Amino acid sequence: MSELRRDPRRDEWLIVAPQRQDRTYHPPPDHCPLCPARPGGQSGEIPEPDFDIAVFENRFPGLRRDAPGDPRPTLDRSDPPLLARAAGLGQAEVVVYTPEHRGSLGSMDLDRVERLIRVWTHRYAALSVREEVRHIFIFENRGPEIGVTLEHPHGQIYGYPFIPPIPARELDVEARHHRRTGRCLGCDLIAAELDAGERVVVASDHVVAHVPFAPRWPYELHLSMRSHRHSLPRIDADERHSLAALLRAALAGYDRLFDRPMPYILAIRQAPTAYTPGPGSHLRIELYPALRDRDRLKHRAGSETAMGVTVTDVAPERAAERLGEVVTL
Amino acid sequence: MSELRRDPRRDEWLIVAPQRQDRTYHPPPDHCPLCPARPGGQSGEIPEPDFDIAVFENRFPGLRRDAPGDPRPTLDRSDPPLLARAAGLGQAEVVVYTPEHRGSLGSMDLDRVERLIRVWTHRYAALSVREEVRHIFIFENRGPEIGVTLEHPHGQIYGYPFIPPIPARELDVEARHHRRTGRCLGCDLIAAELDAGERVVVASDHVVAHVPFAPRWPYELHLSMRSHRHSLPRIDADERHSLAALLRAALAGYDRLFDRPMPYILAIRQAPTAYTPGPGSHLRIELYPALRDRDRLKHRAGSETAMGVTVTDVAPERAAERLGEVVTL
Repeated sequence: MSELRRDPRRDEWLIVAPQRQDRTYHPPPDHCPLCPARPGGQSGEIPEPDFDIAVFENRFPGLRRDAPGDPRPTLDRSDPPLLARAAGLGQAEVVVYTPEHRGSLGSMDLDRVERLIRVWTHRYAALSVREEVRHIFIFENRGPEIGVTLEHPHGQIYGYPFIPPIPARELDVEARHHRRTGRCLGCDLIAAELDAGERVVVASDHVVAHVPFAPRWPYELHLSMRSHRHSLPRIDADERHSLAALLRAALAGYDRLFDRPMPYILAIRQAPTAYTPGPGSHLRIELYPALRDRDRLKHRAGSETAMGVTVTDVAPERAAERLGEVVTL
Repeated sequence: MSELRRDPRRDEWLIVAPQRQDRTYHPPPDHCPLCPARPGGQSGEIPEPDFDIAVFENRFPGLRRDAPGDPRPTLDRSDPPLLARAAGLGQAEVVVYTPEHRGSLGSMDLDRVERLIRVWTHRYAALSVREEVRHIFIFENRGPEIGVTLEHPHGQIYGYPFIPPIPARELDVEARHHRRTGRCLGCDLIAAELDAGERVVVASDHVVAHVPFAPRWPYELHLSMRSHRHSLPRIDADERHSLAALLRAALAGYDRLFDRPMPYILAIRQAPTAYTPGPGSHLRIELYPALRDRDRLKHRAGSETAMGVTVTDVAPERAAERLGEVVTL
């Protein structure tokens, strides 16, 4: 059974989920649990002979609605015991992008990517009303190099019962910036990047794709809304179209960069829930590609893991230049 | 040239070091730059025909004493510009554990491990007096699986010109604990772990090895001093002997756990410098082994990387039990 435990040295909660050790691990394609049900065949997770985009609860969840154990008040105590536990409340979902076993988000029809963004928006809105969900995280891990155990194109959604450490930190920094300037940090950063120019890879009417000034991955890209939108439900159809087009272009570009499928993490960053935006919550998709060269992974070792200090091997301006050659709208 | 850049969203500094992209990458054993100089042969980093333990400045440093650019005052401004840079001041050293090309810290003579701890202590003391060094980090990355490009047994030392985010967070939590209780958090945690018992793997007179209550790696181990010692220069010869013995036992145990060399990060956690301990600085060695099973790496993907929330697959108490079978003093 999974549970939350508080790291007493950092005052941060994490998830212990031993049942996940037994999760499905690189099954052969004809046993893929994310493919549509085959007549007379192995039954997977989706009991339908066909679907467009499917969402279901993870069968090996780190967080779930009815997790046993102490409920959330434990999390809110300002003076928890040294070794504190809490129930693994929340949600863990799988989003299957397509019935096709092969392929990837970067090679799908633009229409499908737009529909996927609508699915993300719907799930974000639905989880936002859940009382125990404090922060919604929509993401994709792609590629065996970073631990993905199912190759069928899919992503995930977590609903955490607390604000995770990294968004918590960012909400603090954004609030400080807003108190000082009266403005959204995300809006100011996009203006600064457009002004500098040297890290912007593609800019459309609604979305700007740029390498961040201080990246943690050699070819990291952020796709930010030009206008102030705190979360997915706030964008209109034109903005969604533009976001889908840039996302697809960026991911297709990654696969061209080293002429091989790029392992990556796709992270949608927005307000914790639709009803709890901070003054600097600004919708963006962050892409963390794992390669630093054709056959070299960017590893996060001692400095990154124990100190939290990334050492980056590629100058961000040079990365933007190279990405400009492969990312085309 | 390397430089520091501030991530404006997290208000954290990181290192951009493009010249490291060209660092030596898996050279053949007879071209190892960490072996003693061979008569008439390729000259490596150490121009000596023999040595015991060697320390030198990294030829591909992320931080160095004479880095050009704005000096540290930029780092200290409470209101830095949105996109802030600073000189990559500090130190990056390589510690070669032995003249022997093969082997590992866990299989060396106990005497050598004790001498290595004395070398670490000496370097920590020497870097502590450097004006621009604010936090010293002694560590080892081991194994190609986590990106190590030289197999000759060695570790590294960084002298950062700032307090990195993770120690900064811990110093805050430790200070809060001290204000509330008057006690060192590290001392209290060791007492709590000894009391609970179920995560203690080995305990000697001077050092306790335990799996943390809320780990980030399935078989993570912390080797903590029983007595309050804020840094390496504070331990005596008996404590050093005991620390060396437990460290060697833990690393040898890791290699037995899955019957193959365990890739790991070894992180020495102590006061930022010998002269700047916090009220809860407590010397320990943290070990982060990268495998969750014989042929499965623990990957840090979306939740770990974008949110800072680890999902652990192995119950810490079960991990302690299994480690108890392979770690023997």
